Amino acid sequence: MKKIRVIHGPNLNFTGIREQGVYGTGTLSDLDNCIRQRGELLGLDVSFYQSNLEGELINALQACYYEEVNGVIINPGAYTHYSYALRDAIASISIPTIEVHLSNIHKREPFRHQSVTAPACIGQICGLGPDSYLLALTYLANL
Amino acid sequence: MKKIRVIHGPNLNFTGIREQGVYGTGTLSDLDNCIRQRGELLGLDVSFYQSNLEGELINALQACYYEEVNGVIINPGAYTHYSYALRDAIASISIPTIEVHLSNIHKREPFRHQSVTAPACIGQICGLGPDSYLLALTYLANL
Amino acid sequence: MKKIRVIHGPNLNFTGIREQGVYGTGTLSDLDNCIRQRGELLGLDVSFYQSNLEGELINALQACYYEEVNGVIINPGAYTHYSYALRDAIASISIPTIEVHLSNIHKREPFRHQSVTAPACIGQICGLGPDSYLLALTYLANL
Amino acid sequence: MKKIRVIHGPNLNFTGIREQGVYGTGTLSDLDNCIRQRGELLGLDVSFYQSNLEGELINALQACYYEEVNGVIINPGAYTHYSYALRDAIASISIPTIEVHLSNIHKREPFRHQSVTAPACIGQICGLGPDSYLLALTYLANL
Amino acid sequence: MKKIRVIHGPNLNFTGIREQGVYGTGTLSDLDNCIRQRGELLGLDVSFYQSNLEGELINALQACYYEEVNGVIINPGAYTHYSYALRDAIASISIPTIEVHLSNIHKREPFRHQSVTAPACIGQICGLGPDSYLLALTYLANL
Amino acid sequence: MKKIRVIHGPNLNFTGIREQGVYGTGTLSDLDNCIRQRGELLGLDVSFYQSNLEGELINALQACYYEEVNGVIINPGAYTHYSYALRDAIASISIPTIEVHLSNIHKREPFRHQSVTAPACIGQICGLGPDSYLLALTYLANL
Amino acid sequence: MKKIRVIHGPNLNFTGIREQGVYGTGTLSDLDNCIRQRGELLGLDVSFYQSNLEGELINALQACYYEEVNGVIINPGAYTHYSYALRDAIASISIPTIEVHLSNIHKREPFRHQSVTAPACIGQICGLGPDSYLLALTYLANL
Amino acid sequence: MKKIRVIHGPNLNFTGIREQGVYGTGTLSDLDNCIRQRGELLGLDVSFYQSNLEGELINALQACYYEEVNGVIINPGAYTHYSYALRDAIASISIPTIEVHLSNIHKREPFRHQSVTAPACIGQICGLGPDSYLLALTYLANL
Amino acid sequence: MKKIRVIHGPNLNFTGIREQGVYGTGTLSDLDNCIRQRGELLGLDVSFYQSNLEGELINALQACYYEEVNGVIINPGAYTHYSYALRDAIASISIPTIEVHLSNIHKREPFRHQSVTAPACIGQICGLGPDSYLLALTYLANL
Amino acid sequence: MKKIRVIHGPNLNFTGIREQGVYGTGTLSDLDNCIRQRGELLGLDVSFYQSNLEGELINALQACYYEEVNGVIINPGAYTHYSYALRDAIASISIPTIEVHLSNIHKREPFRHQSVTAPACIGQICGLGPDSYLLALTYLANL
Amino acid sequence: MKKIRVIHGPNLNFTGIREQGVYGTGTLSDLDNCIRQRGELLGLDVSFYQSNLEGELINALQACYYEEVNGVIINPGAYTHYSYALRDAIASISIPTIEVHLSNIHKREPFRHQSVTAPACIGQICGLGPDSYLLALTYLANL
Amino acid sequence: MKKIRVIHGPNLNFTGIREQGVYGTGTLSDLDNCIRQRGELLGLDVSFYQSNLEGELINALQACYYEEVNGVIINPGAYTHYSYALRDAIASISIPTIEVHLSNIHKREPFRHQSVTAPACIGQICGLGPDSYLLALTYLANL
Repeated sequence: MKKIRVIHGPNLNFTGIREQGVYGTGTLSDLDNCIRQRGELLGLDVSFYQSNLEGELINALQACYYEEVNGVIINPGAYTHYSYALRDAIASISIPTIEVHLSNIHKREPFRHQSVTAPACIGQICGLGPDSYLLALTYLANL
Repeated sequence: MKKIRVIHGPNLNFTGIREQGVYGTGTLSDLDNCIRQRGELLGLDVSFYQSNLEGELINALQACYYEEVNGVIINPGAYTHYSYALRDAIASISIPTIEVHLSNIHKREPFRHQSVTAPACIGQICGLGPDSYLLALTYLANL
Repeated sequence: MKKIRVIHGPNLNFTGIREQGVYGTGTLSDLDNCIRQRGELLGLDVSFYQSNLEGELINALQACYYEEVNGVIINPGAYTHYSYALRDAIASISIPTIEVHLSNIHKREPFRHQSVTAPACIGQICGLGPDSYLLALTYLANL
Repeated sequence: MKKIRVIHGPNLNFTGIREQGVYGTGTLSDLDNCIRQRGELLGLDVSFYQSNLEGELINALQACYYEEVNGVIINPGAYTHYSYALRDAIASISIPTIEVHLSNIHKREPFRHQSVTAPACIGQICGLGPDSYLLALTYLANL
Repeated sequence: MKKIRVIHGPNLNFTGIREQGVYGTGTLSDLDNCIRQRGELLGLDVSFYQSNLEGELINALQACYYEEVNGVIINPGAYTHYSYALRDAIASISIPTIEVHLSNIHKREPFRHQSVTAPACIGQICGLGPDSYLLALTYLANL
Repeated sequence: MKKIRVIHGPNLNFTGIREQGVYGTGTLSDLDNCIRQRGELLGLDVSFYQSNLEGELINALQACYYEEVNGVIINPGAYTHYSYALRDAIASISIPTIEVHLSNIHKREPFRHQSVTAPACIGQICGLGPDSYLLALTYLANL
Repeated sequence: MKKIRVIHGPNLNFTGIREQGVYGTGTLSDLDNCIRQRGELLGLDVSFYQSNLEGELINALQACYYEEVNGVIINPGAYTHYSYALRDAIASISIPTIEVHLSNIHKREPFRHQSVTAPACIGQICGLGPDSYLLALTYLANL
Repeated sequence: MKKIRVIHGPNLNFTGIREQGVYGTGTLSDLDNCIRQRGELLGLDVSFYQSNLEGELINALQACYYEEVNGVIINPGAYTHYSYALRDAIASISIPTIEVHLSNIHKREPFRHQSVTAPACIGQICGLGPDSYLLALTYLANL
Repeated sequence: MKKIRVIHGPNLNFTGIREQGVYGTGTLSDLDNCIRQRGELLGLDVSFYQSNLEGELINALQACYYEEVNGVIINPGAYTHYSYALRDAIASISIPTIEVHLSNIHKREPFRHQSVTAPACIGQICGLGPDSYLLALTYLANL
Repeated sequence: MKKIRVIHGPNLNFTGIREQGVYGTGTLSDLDNCIRQRGELLGLDVSFYQSNLEGELINALQACYYEEVNGVIINPGAYTHYSYALRDAIASISIPTIEVHLSNIHKREPFRHQSVTAPACIGQICGLGPDSYLLALTYLANL
Repeated sequence: MKKIRVIHGPNLNFTGIREQGVYGTGTLSDLDNCIRQRGELLGLDVSFYQSNLEGELINALQACYYEEVNGVIINPGAYTHYSYALRDAIASISIPTIEVHLSNIHKREPFRHQSVTAPACIGQICGLGPDSYLLALTYLANL
Repeated sequence: MKKIRVIHGPNLNFTGIREQGVYGTGTLSDLDNCIRQRGELLGLDVSFYQSNLEGELINALQACYYEEVNGVIINPGAYTHYSYALRDAIASISIPTIEVHLSNIHKREPFRHQSVTAPACIGQICGLGPDSYLLALTYLANL
């Protein structure tokens, strides 16, 4: 059974609380449930991790390597735009990784238009709300 | 029945011929068949358009408005990076539009890292090969 | 009788449909009628052209040269901000040309603050809605 | 009777003296007479102000507010390109204001291509010599 | 008795009139009364100056030197962002000076994020409305 | 009784040790005592937190939300200049937050002139040493 | 017999009409005759294409692929400086291509100093008038 | 007898008071006396003007035109680095003008390395203290 | 006996696993053994620390201060290029610190060419693989 | 008999040794023989010069002036990208000069995309290997 | 007797030949004679050096140190704009040095507006033709 | 016996004379002696070269190729920051080369933070005074 790890970056534990105009009212737990159910349908073993700490996200990525995870879905939050350390971590684990964003980062402040982590991923999905995660899951299921 | 229009930009008619290292060996016709089949499964009326001309792509987007298309999937090719006219066209038709790319534009030359058309779309999917289109289709089916 | 050609660029055929907050609800046809009437008052032979294709706009400018048009009013739409080819075309025909914009381009996104076509024109009028065209017409009538 | 104030910025009192290749040989007084006559035709109460001092131009704009002027035509001269204070003043008085320039600022040195005052105006007219003012007057007459 | 001079820059005499969404509805005179009362409580001799002219603000700063003022509170308005002359004046008088702003300049247009005058001051307080002035006063009282 | 949380960022636990020329010789504990005493005078319940970890500072900000803190004073240290994650955290908790700095960041290296966190705060106070904190406290007391 | 296609970009059909100071008085037809004659001497089958439309130039390049052309000489006109779509087309056809310019682009406006199409070509010849084409022809004859 | 006008810009009336490390301890009056004496030796009619107001400096330059001054020595102080209005004024009066600076502007903060006024002058002398003025005087005497 | 602390930044615990083309196949533990042996030869007390967390690296640097370490060798990994907080920490502990890198950062992506931490160190050694550390150790032994 | 001077810049004496992937295996002497033979066919007196010293290349250009050389072919090597002194030298001698490069400089590192010497030449030929020189020779023969 | 060395940089030996519109028709030898005569009047021992080689100019500056020259006048020609090596040489010899230019570098191409050598000099004189040298001589005579 | 060549760039012959605050008081000859002795201990044949001329440094690098030198230590001085020609020379000789600097270039002026020569070297050592050379020597001895 394929193992997929979903990694949420900083402030995503405030989804549904924070800036509802941008992110909607569903909480992170709602989002995870939704992803879990889809995972079950697809016959995947999906697990979750969230941290506000850049370095713990790196640790979590490295854990994926040791636990032989088959695919990673990562929403690096604001670290997307400056964390070269996270980018190196994604590159180092050699596991298919998809970067996702709830909102369309191209529609927001200029600093959010650039992703320094995406070059280390297979691809990126943004702007589709929870579906950004679900579509990434579908993709990894078929890989 | 929901109408979805898939719009391919410049040089995509050379997919499978051009730079196979980057884009694979499937042709545009293979790609369209693959999308059509998925569309049938999802109960969608999917149609296709390709042009190398920036202005014809704008015309095609405007046609979607007049033909009451329900969703657009657009791969603007290299126009992604400088066609503010295409961006205006997407914004003007008020139809849910997803920008897709076969390759991960963030891994390629710096000029490809920026999208001037994405701010007018709902979201963007890149780097997942033909699946970039298929996932967009799935998303629009559920909208 | 002086011949004046009004050339509308990309997406202007969606005026009145597109982004009414920015451009108002009058259609392009309303706009043209309004300009035509003013032209009649001023004793001018006014004709109109619209295209979404950068190169067809160049063709239209060259046609002005062959048809011995006396003045050109051009709204290059989004091409204003990157079409050096259009700029070259305006420069090459040696006909007095005024660049116009319905909206005040200086109030909008930063990429719209710069005009690469204006240096090839006599001058520029922006932000005055349909009057941008009408004032340009008045100017050309008196030239 | 509508009150219109024409405000000339720095060095415009040297029009006709200064750089005749760029600005022609008419003096500021000629220009004002020409505008005044047009104003009479249009049934407007037109008054004039010139100063080389950025802050006095701000004072003059504020005076328009207290004197219930109905429209302002301003040529901010070189202040166009860096006077954020002037921009704030235009924004603060809430009177329809048009920015004008005798020459086509887009054809000259790069620093003249950007206007920091135009975003606070309704629109901008440049390159049409004295007609830049006259057309602005016509526009304000019809507002 | 300590002498404190409050210097208001361009357009601050329009406070309460101008852009009430940004600056509130209190007038400059209200603001000055409020500061004066606080000054009395703190046993300070507070005086006020406002000008829209960059050079008069420099004159006013130099006057502080000759009148042996003990502390200066300056709101340079839009000059904050480009007046190197004002910066030199602050540096030359060697009197403790605090830069204040009613609004949070970091939340507004990009050109307002940089202060060229702040490097010549002791510090800067912004975004706290009239309290920006009152807290500066408190600080200078205790110096 | 109003609850105020003071959050010190990286290296502030070295205040009084580190670069005394810039920050003085008082320790962080001295600073906290000073703030606590002022808080008592103002009838505030003031608590303190320091961490060198960007993500723990985010955690601490989120804790303020759950503990219904009424106001936050944050000195993000060097994170001020690049931590978009911290900025998002401040924006997400919807608690009045003031950014403070002991030194005048505008007088130091160019990279310190920009704050990416200040746009999410009410305002910013810098350069006034311990008084930067005390004035922020006074402001929050009166809010 | 080797097939060579000469592709002229926007405004080149105005050669001899447009800006004679820069481009001389020979027309495009004169230029093509001159190239044809040289081609006959070199035993080459030379054909010609001109368009003002970016996308038609892409079509013309793709036609070279289907018609098994052996070498391409392209003068992309102003598209040289921004058409990433044209660059992709040149790269995709895998036919030896030389970029040529009549004028020395390095001597003209700064925006003309950069070529975004040249990286997809074998090389570039500029500034030698009609000889830019003739030398490219000689080179391709010997390849 | 040749008429020379020496124009001192903002803060120069604080020479000798302000930043003695940079400018020395001589006052502006000492400096003017020194220049006057040299002028007498050279048989020149030297007069002086100082203002902190950008626009008054423009007025003073225009006065030189009306008073048929033969040469101008200007130290624009900090206006050197941003006053395009002053530059226009120098250009407009068509009188030989030399820009001078007491200090070596190239040794100081980066913003002082650029002069926007120098392109309108004959030349520039900087870094030689009072001799910057005296040498300019000598030059104008011999013109 | 001199105390030397070796601090490895993010992803260095993946050395030998990650991107072997760039970093070789030796593990971090191999590297540490190699450094330890050299330290014994040089009569040094060498200890090691690794963390993926920026703030823990700051903590580790501060610990060096409290434990009276005599020299620090730090490889800040990707934090080299943006962690101003780490730079401040190095500056604050006043212990001779050498920055090292296994790879030649100047040969890699542009963002790796700049070090924001090096200005706080004595010097930097890069590109010499494990020898980067060993040479730094030799240097600190002789200090 | 027309005199042509071929001037090779820095490192070209290592052609055939250096980076054979980029420059091929022919030596500079092979290249010069090839050019000499073509020169004989064209009835030209061709001579050669190579130096690694920027200033000696300037001397060599000046020698062309004194020796009444009729045309110059120069490959400035890496000096192409920063030697404004070489540019001045080319401009000063007033002899038709063609800049050539063996490789396509637009395909290589970004710093090689710009030529500061080309604006002083008639034109530039790059990317055609030894033919870059031969075509330049042909051009100069016909001038 | 004071020893003054005049050092002319690249292409100055072509003064009077090169670009007479910019530099006049006097030769370098005329210029040197003129300077020598002035030196005799001032009781100075003036000697001259010219080279087109950046490194020889450095050697010449170092020679000034060994020969105990009292003052240097240097015209670094185009090296002014990029030779950090020359700047270091000027800084290293600790002899009062004045940078001079015949033309007004601020009036010419943008790359000539910046001097990287001036920060190592006492001051700079430009735009005054031969007088730039003569005034520098006068200044050094009085030092 | 391994042959190592030490190449010193511009102004290094003034070490000990020039800016002692930055470089110490040892002369270049002291430095060379120190390196020679270390070389003898390591059983290396070390030779030295210094020049202020960029092109002679290139010649010296090429000589290393012909003399079959086994390793090069180069301190390019200020050429580090702009000499692409030197970079090409290092790349062309295919001999292990280490770039060294006496001072920490990252602590100095911004223009010294970038090395254009380092990408062609194995690695770089800076800031360790003479030890920068000695450590490089040790490294090359063990290669």
